Amino acid sequence: MTTASASASPASTSPASTTSFVPTAPPVDPAELDDPLASAHRDAADPLAHHTALFLPAGDVVSYLDGNSLGRPMAATPARLDAFVRGDWGTRLIRSWDERWMQLPTELGDRIGAAALGAAPGQTVVADSTTVLLYKAIRASLAARPDRHEIVIDDDQFPTDRFVVEGIARERGATVRWLSVDETRGVTPEQVRDVVGPDTAVVLVNHVSYRSGFLADLPAITGIVHEAGALLVADLCHSVGVVPTELDAWEVDIAVGCTYKYLNGGPGAPAFLYARADLLPELEQPVQGWMGAADVFAMAEGYVPDAGIRKFVSGTPPVVGMLAMQDMLDAIEEAGLPAIREKSLALTDYAFDLVDAWLAPLGVTTATPREHERRGSHVTVRHPRFREVVATLWQEGVVPDFRGPDALRIGLSPLSTTFDEVRVGVAAIREALQQG
Amino acid sequence: MTTASASASPASTSPASTTSFVPTAPPVDPAELDDPLASAHRDAADPLAHHTALFLPAGDVVSYLDGNSLGRPMAATPARLDAFVRGDWGTRLIRSWDERWMQLPTELGDRIGAAALGAAPGQTVVADSTTVLLYKAIRASLAARPDRHEIVIDDDQFPTDRFVVEGIARERGATVRWLSVDETRGVTPEQVRDVVGPDTAVVLVNHVSYRSGFLADLPAITGIVHEAGALLVADLCHSVGVVPTELDAWEVDIAVGCTYKYLNGGPGAPAFLYARADLLPELEQPVQGWMGAADVFAMAEGYVPDAGIRKFVSGTPPVVGMLAMQDMLDAIEEAGLPAIREKSLALTDYAFDLVDAWLAPLGVTTATPREHERRGSHVTVRHPRFREVVATLWQEGVVPDFRGPDALRIGLSPLSTTFDEVRVGVAAIREALQQG
Repeated sequence: MTTASASASPASTSPASTTSFVPTAPPVDPAELDDPLASAHRDAADPLAHHTALFLPAGDVVSYLDGNSLGRPMAATPARLDAFVRGDWGTRLIRSWDERWMQLPTELGDRIGAAALGAAPGQTVVADSTTVLLYKAIRASLAARPDRHEIVIDDDQFPTDRFVVEGIARERGATVRWLSVDETRGVTPEQVRDVVGPDTAVVLVNHVSYRSGFLADLPAITGIVHEAGALLVADLCHSVGVVPTELDAWEVDIAVGCTYKYLNGGPGAPAFLYARADLLPELEQPVQGWMGAADVFAMAEGYVPDAGIRKFVSGTPPVVGMLAMQDMLDAIEEAGLPAIREKSLALTDYAFDLVDAWLAPLGVTTATPREHERRGSHVTVRHPRFREVVATLWQEGVVPDFRGPDALRIGLSPLSTTFDEVRVGVAAIREALQQG
Repeated sequence: MTTASASASPASTSPASTTSFVPTAPPVDPAELDDPLASAHRDAADPLAHHTALFLPAGDVVSYLDGNSLGRPMAATPARLDAFVRGDWGTRLIRSWDERWMQLPTELGDRIGAAALGAAPGQTVVADSTTVLLYKAIRASLAARPDRHEIVIDDDQFPTDRFVVEGIARERGATVRWLSVDETRGVTPEQVRDVVGPDTAVVLVNHVSYRSGFLADLPAITGIVHEAGALLVADLCHSVGVVPTELDAWEVDIAVGCTYKYLNGGPGAPAFLYARADLLPELEQPVQGWMGAADVFAMAEGYVPDAGIRKFVSGTPPVVGMLAMQDMLDAIEEAGLPAIREKSLALTDYAFDLVDAWLAPLGVTTATPREHERRGSHVTVRHPRFREVVATLWQEGVVPDFRGPDALRIGLSPLSTTFDEVRVGVAAIREALQQG
């Protein structure tokens, strides 16, 4: 499964290929930044602007900058839930398991795979939470490399990734090899190359760092991990739905991600897991349950796993939590990920311009890469007073989020976020800092 | 933790105490069974009859007999979901995590504990699926008894329980000790006493058997398991919400159950886990994630588990799936579990009478205990033609379920099932058998 070409092949859609991601509005004239119409012009020129009407009104929120943490509900979602409760659940009742729910984990997985992951059908499933799926992914990877004992992860990885890995290492007698990353960056191919070796079983990498927004070079890293004979597990939580991703072409082994950020599935909506088709037969997950069995209703003696990706399912699929994301998948399929990425870069460019003009003079620094090809869809800024500033902003209907000790994240969800929201939000941050 | 009194103490609410569970209608006169008003009289005399109006209309379904598999949605649920999407999610947005969602797993756990488990606060949490929580429960139990290597389970246990146990035994080098049970019964205290010993780490018992509806003597079994120095894990999936349960008084160690049967949480709604307060400090679960950490948003190095029941949470709580069950908890709290149990026994008594009068002459046998104190809330009947009969009934709006090779389950959910539905359902089974 080691291929030298993995890092070079998917040039047309790789995030490393930025030529198609030119913002649709002209570069900002600094003088224009104080003009409230500056953002209106951008919204008027935004080819995806009509998608913002697909979301429910946000009440008193004048600037929602946390779609990287919890995506907004879509206008179609209340009716979908109502029809589900009164129909599939309320009148088809248990018959709906046969009629549609049993297939939902793999059907939805295939949709996410096609719309957002560059994954052919049969490799993606929706289930559990990100944490539980990471547990299954790392356990399965270790079991598939039984002569190797090292798990590589970086020290700025999202807490749950680190906690899962540390727990597994303790229980399986494996070693955790920590990569040290600058808080404003993320893991580089060179760092990975320096540490992987014959004892490396699996490398866990964030596609986009939750803290800095750094976009890792996943195809290059995957190639390096494969050259060492190890497996690559990617955490796509902060990239899925906003960063074009080609898991099949990049030959990523396993990927896990969540559906409540840029896939707008609602708080705690279930996660997804992708496993490469030709690796799948080698993978064995530890939480074996009836819904991952080859014949679910055989009620037979002894567990025989499903031959396909369904074997990663354990318990009864969380159907109610799998409804809302379908509305966002409709929108993503219509807009297309390249256009979404284009707007994401335009929004983050605009955020950088506003931060440079309005916040830098107040002592704010940026912690997100400036290069398009190394940036996800949120911009992280730092200031010692941001804890109190965010608390104040939340009361005023300006909603970014805070990550200690001093980071404010400006998360931009291209189908729901307007340029005007970015301007209003950064202006409010400026005002809060000036008033303090 | 071993107490000789465990099996005797909670007499007032134990299922062994049946004196208060007298059906409200008089005993059936066999001649009356062919009178369609027989069920109407019972419904008229049912003190819980008004609760049936709390559920959404079931469309073409004239007899829903599968509440033991999927509870019906309540009339209040569509509005609750709509308000949630437009309000907490749509306008409070990420702020709702601080305002209410973070507490939801333990708040809901406490409500289930008080309404249905006989559990004081701080011992019950809602999370994951039954399968994943069983995995955590058995792993935690084994780790708490490190010098013991045997897991006791019966061979008629629900498949996911068996699969989880077999997987854990393989990975931890433990031994599975199988108890053989008659398909019409379940595990008895005597059987458990015969096998537990100094190498027994944990015994996993179904409170109510999914197949036969047998109600295990949980307090007696718990006492025997404790005398052997082992831990008792109870699977409450088929008893929670219909069988009075006193986990604290019975000194059960860990219990797991689902919320989509008699708690009407919707398909795949998350499960719950109870762990006895004085045992909790000894328990360590393997899927350590950020939402079970002592300080969730510290984003700190190294996992420090929450000191309380929250440590059994791994990933982000499945908020959307935790909404509907709140409507059923309202209803259970209002009706009270003793009254619910009383109607459950009246419904199952009536089902037995109808089966004896109408189906036994057609070769149908029963597989559920006749004694009140050994019966849950479903009645299982057997006939070689039941696979095709159930398929036919489903098309006619009569909805029991089928479990191979020959079992039809008549599941009775006391707050939503009418006596008339039981009569209509059993009459339809008779007609299908006569026509075939």
